[in-house]
Amino acid sequence: MLIQLNNTCSEDKANELIDHIKSVGLKPNQVVTNNAHYLICLGKAEVDIRTIGKLDGVKDVHIVDDESKLVSRQWRVNDTAIDLGDEITISRDNLTLTLGPCAIESEEQVEEIVNFLSENDVKLMRGGIFKPRSSPYAFRGLGIEGLKFFSHQCKTRGIKVVTEVMQVSQIEEMYPYVDIFQVGTRNAQNYNLLDALGRLDKPILLKRGMSSTISEFLAAAEYIFCNGNENIILCERGIRTFEKMYRNTLDLNAIPLLKEKSHLPVFCDPSHGIGIREHVETMALSSVMAGADGVLMEIHPIPEKAFSDGQQTLNFPEAKRSIDRLKQTRNFRKMLFQENSKTT
Amino acid sequence: MLIQLNNTCSEDKANELIDHIKSVGLKPNQVVTNNAHYLICLGKAEVDIRTIGKLDGVKDVHIVDDESKLVSRQWRVNDTAIDLGDEITISRDNLTLTLGPCAIESEEQVEEIVNFLSENDVKLMRGGIFKPRSSPYAFRGLGIEGLKFFSHQCKTRGIKVVTEVMQVSQIEEMYPYVDIFQVGTRNAQNYNLLDALGRLDKPILLKRGMSSTISEFLAAAEYIFCNGNENIILCERGIRTFEKMYRNTLDLNAIPLLKEKSHLPVFCDPSHGIGIREHVETMALSSVMAGADGVLMEIHPIPEKAFSDGQQTLNFPEAKRSIDRLKQTRNFRKMLFQENSKTT
Amino acid sequence: MLIQLNNTCSEDKANELIDHIKSVGLKPNQVVTNNAHYLICLGKAEVDIRTIGKLDGVKDVHIVDDESKLVSRQWRVNDTAIDLGDEITISRDNLTLTLGPCAIESEEQVEEIVNFLSENDVKLMRGGIFKPRSSPYAFRGLGIEGLKFFSHQCKTRGIKVVTEVMQVSQIEEMYPYVDIFQVGTRNAQNYNLLDALGRLDKPILLKRGMSSTISEFLAAAEYIFCNGNENIILCERGIRTFEKMYRNTLDLNAIPLLKEKSHLPVFCDPSHGIGIREHVETMALSSVMAGADGVLMEIHPIPEKAFSDGQQTLNFPEAKRSIDRLKQTRNFRKMLFQENSKTT
Amino acid sequence: MLIQLNNTCSEDKANELIDHIKSVGLKPNQVVTNNAHYLICLGKAEVDIRTIGKLDGVKDVHIVDDESKLVSRQWRVNDTAIDLGDEITISRDNLTLTLGPCAIESEEQVEEIVNFLSENDVKLMRGGIFKPRSSPYAFRGLGIEGLKFFSHQCKTRGIKVVTEVMQVSQIEEMYPYVDIFQVGTRNAQNYNLLDALGRLDKPILLKRGMSSTISEFLAAAEYIFCNGNENIILCERGIRTFEKMYRNTLDLNAIPLLKEKSHLPVFCDPSHGIGIREHVETMALSSVMAGADGVLMEIHPIPEKAFSDGQQTLNFPEAKRSIDRLKQTRNFRKMLFQENSKTT
Repeated sequence: MLIQLNNTCSEDKANELIDHIKSVGLKPNQVVTNNAHYLICLGKAEVDIRTIGKLDGVKDVHIVDDESKLVSRQWRVNDTAIDLGDEITISRDNLTLTLGPCAIESEEQVEEIVNFLSENDVKLMRGGIFKPRSSPYAFRGLGIEGLKFFSHQCKTRGIKVVTEVMQVSQIEEMYPYVDIFQVGTRNAQNYNLLDALGRLDKPILLKRGMSSTISEFLAAAEYIFCNGNENIILCERGIRTFEKMYRNTLDLNAIPLLKEKSHLPVFCDPSHGIGIREHVETMALSSVMAGADGVLMEIHPIPEKAFSDGQQTLNFPEAKRSIDRLKQTRNFRKMLFQENSKTT
Repeated sequence: MLIQLNNTCSEDKANELIDHIKSVGLKPNQVVTNNAHYLICLGKAEVDIRTIGKLDGVKDVHIVDDESKLVSRQWRVNDTAIDLGDEITISRDNLTLTLGPCAIESEEQVEEIVNFLSENDVKLMRGGIFKPRSSPYAFRGLGIEGLKFFSHQCKTRGIKVVTEVMQVSQIEEMYPYVDIFQVGTRNAQNYNLLDALGRLDKPILLKRGMSSTISEFLAAAEYIFCNGNENIILCERGIRTFEKMYRNTLDLNAIPLLKEKSHLPVFCDPSHGIGIREHVETMALSSVMAGADGVLMEIHPIPEKAFSDGQQTLNFPEAKRSIDRLKQTRNFRKMLFQENSKTT
Repeated sequence: MLIQLNNTCSEDKANELIDHIKSVGLKPNQVVTNNAHYLICLGKAEVDIRTIGKLDGVKDVHIVDDESKLVSRQWRVNDTAIDLGDEITISRDNLTLTLGPCAIESEEQVEEIVNFLSENDVKLMRGGIFKPRSSPYAFRGLGIEGLKFFSHQCKTRGIKVVTEVMQVSQIEEMYPYVDIFQVGTRNAQNYNLLDALGRLDKPILLKRGMSSTISEFLAAAEYIFCNGNENIILCERGIRTFEKMYRNTLDLNAIPLLKEKSHLPVFCDPSHGIGIREHVETMALSSVMAGADGVLMEIHPIPEKAFSDGQQTLNFPEAKRSIDRLKQTRNFRKMLFQENSKTT
Repeated sequence: MLIQLNNTCSEDKANELIDHIKSVGLKPNQVVTNNAHYLICLGKAEVDIRTIGKLDGVKDVHIVDDESKLVSRQWRVNDTAIDLGDEITISRDNLTLTLGPCAIESEEQVEEIVNFLSENDVKLMRGGIFKPRSSPYAFRGLGIEGLKFFSHQCKTRGIKVVTEVMQVSQIEEMYPYVDIFQVGTRNAQNYNLLDALGRLDKPILLKRGMSSTISEFLAAAEYIFCNGNENIILCERGIRTFEKMYRNTLDLNAIPLLKEKSHLPVFCDPSHGIGIREHVETMALSSVMAGADGVLMEIHPIPEKAFSDGQQTLNFPEAKRSIDRLKQTRNFRKMLFQENSKTT
């Protein structure tokens, strides 16, 4: 059971409610976000929700069968929209393109990419400053210094910064320069990191673990939400299978399923998903048709010289063409469903 | 090395060529199809292909690095088109919709579906008469009697019959009633069946094995082709992963990859792929955007009463809407790429 | 519900029972094996099994919850033992070593191996005469001529012949020369083949499909049993995962689980399982410790010259040492459990 | 190339060597552990190792082809042995049993288990105080207070404490109470955590990620080693596959392979691996036969009342019997190989 409290509900009133919940045999978990105040009530005691609904301070009550409660669409009628400021909103009503290099390499590289994005009306740039690498001897990113010029360049052009955070201790120094914190596939079950990000007031782009089930993926989002942060983007990026011809197996089945199960926006990362430059655009278009609300793609002025992931990275002319096709495809899909469908 | 002989090349001349190939240290495999006469020359001996190209009887010579030779697009410039007669052609220039019930259940059921397809201009109907079932106690299909009325009903309306063959001994009695023989996922490596189907003059719809790699899938097609049958359709239908929320994990990555590696048409079966009725259409549209040349979908007058697979089967109104959207999506894609692109 | 009839039960009496079963709302499937006469009664009708048990002609009645009924150990107290004649029995009380080359290559090769096995008291030889190969251009086995001398050589030394059958049409000509028919991993769901083998009076060695679940594996065995053949050996041989360092991932978890769920003997094939010559013995010993009732290993006089699978094949000195260690390990395990434990 | 420096090599001398390595076109990484001083030299420049070997300060030089250098057995002749003090050593010459509850629940629970271990001569106890849980609402462990009494109880009986650390910030407060830090499967690619643990002077028990390849697993160990900590234990604990009957698929193939590729001790965790109480012992015995140098098993005074993982946890009588059988099996294996074999 999920209880949403009135925003005017006092702390005393909330505590009274919590005591009441306990008295009927349920275990309440209090969650306060920027947006609302919730009680997640766990347990098997049967309760008449109409009675609960009439209690003072209660705005609404919902039965939520799903294991993950707050991210479930069983209780929330409206899909989550994330306001980034500057009239940029991530939601199921838009297609949010998020482009950038695998790794931030130099201020010149950032500047070139920012210019390209600006010219093509792309509002989010993603680039890695802390790089999780399988080998400890590989390039591990420019770190906080790289983030500073990355942020600086973006701000001058009204572009939002998306970058991966790898551990709790990095959050504080990254905070001033980041608009959306990304959780990478290797940290999809790093629960302390999820807890800490849940206490922030900035949105989180949560990548699916490379072998996470849908249920585990939603549970990871629940970790963030139940710590107080409602602004979460789910991102499919490919799972691990026996197939060796692609880097990962991009699982587009996840897109309609996540949109059915959750109210959160769902993005797709075809660059990591298939990992083959020639097919990134095709998978991106396919993901939009599957309902993706955003697409991440790796671009670089000269992919052949990229420090990492060059084989899955588009150059500017390729990216320009793809941006155009992705937008057309999103519009076509909207037309096809002949409605501002939020849920399909 | 793949040598295509002149169609006028005599048997004697072919044998001379074969001897020559042997003399230079390669092992020739002779393949004669309705369409052409090939020598697949295996081995590591280095040969000057210009010299071979000048030999009497030789039409063309190609180096083919791929493990599977005849199905590789390294040698064939034009994509394979399959003429079914009655002006029905399967190729990369069309979208071929193939609808029908999981199992043929009765003549009335077939008649209803044939009427529906006919009204909606769908030219291929698929239905199972031999059903591979995990449990020996489950319904295993109506067999050859079912096929007879299935075929009869289809013929009256100009619809082509697609049905699964499970073993070599069934081929002969099925032959008069079938337009396209389907090989199911469980038989994807049943090599004797593939050999036998390779000796037929009717097209084969080859489903990917539930844990086949792309390379094994193409090798299965090679089995058919090298026995003499060029008319093969590759069909992605979902692979097995750790995810439990879908029946299978439809692998749309396979579509652009198969189209890159092979000249054969590539279909997609979202009904088995995701296995959830509400999401079949979404995955179908997504597969068309990924480049699928055909889509298989399970339909039934009353899915709730279907003998099998009801949970992934569309009813007529759903199917009608999907047919329309699939055609629009195909047209949109064509427009998007602004060309009669055969290969993307 | 599984009903075992008295062996003296007449056909009329059986038909009466069948009518009775139908009248109480269950669907009876009659199974007659060399050993016994069963009715597998499917359906949800609730029946008092004591009432059924008292009916004329009924020997015993059991509730079997498992999906696969006849192979389930819910009803059979004693484990299945398979008598091969000449005092050779496959059962949970022995360790049955089954050695031989991947492919039968020549009579000389067979003779050498037969001598080796004979000297080392190994009673079963396995060798392929029909080889399922991913590529149609690879060596596909010597066929029936190879089987003839394989059988001839084995008979002279009292060794039993195990070989793979790939399709129904091969059974008849193979029959006189084969002691145990093997079903390969690619045919694990070739239901027509399973049906046909179920009608034989010779034992079947059934390999697990490379991506079969335990439940599907048992269902494949049920196909054989319900056609009348009780003599089935289950064989774990590795599944497909994301790991690239081994050929397959030998799944030893399957051994205790299959022995818990079924009364059939369970073998293990480490040669295909891990596919690395240096580690075949280790995995073989480990499988015996996990409870395997038999081990298959590939051996060859000169593995480096084997037509196929040389990289996972032992030479004679290696095989000799492994045979000895496997026997010791089996004895040690028996001692460790201090009982003629049939089920652990 | 891996260069081991003389322990007497001065810092100046080391810097000279580093400069020399750079001058020949390689990139040196300096690694100083409690045990030795290494230079890991990466790059493709060809160097005559004999020349390098003669340089002042160099103890030994090795070519290491493996991606992970320091953990590779290509350079280290002797296997790694980890001295825990009090005459407890983890190495390939022993079987190190490590038992304990999934979660530390109370001081009484710890005391009971410590007594049991002490009576049975088990020297390592593992118990969770920080529990990674899929759901944020599940019990997440007693935290540092639990660790204090866990450590206290163990110390009184000479038992070593093994517990999972989930993030860098926990290390400092845990340090005084922990003998071996465990990295759990979800943190197998949490590189910051691995880096930080690499700077400790206490051993690390590194669990394989639930979908880690062998190569990624070794790379995770390399992260720890190249930060200065040589004392690493690799632990197989099951991978994720399509099989639903077990919790995970314990991959015993990994054991001989890890022992071939690395010089580190290799443990096995059958409790998480198969996740079924009745089969934990069987898989444990099987893992010892596969060469495991240590076994982790979950035990609890009353598994049915355990806060978590009860279904895979042994009670004391079961554990007692298993301890005895595991030791016997290890001795049997040693006898079987008739040598103090360190590597097989």
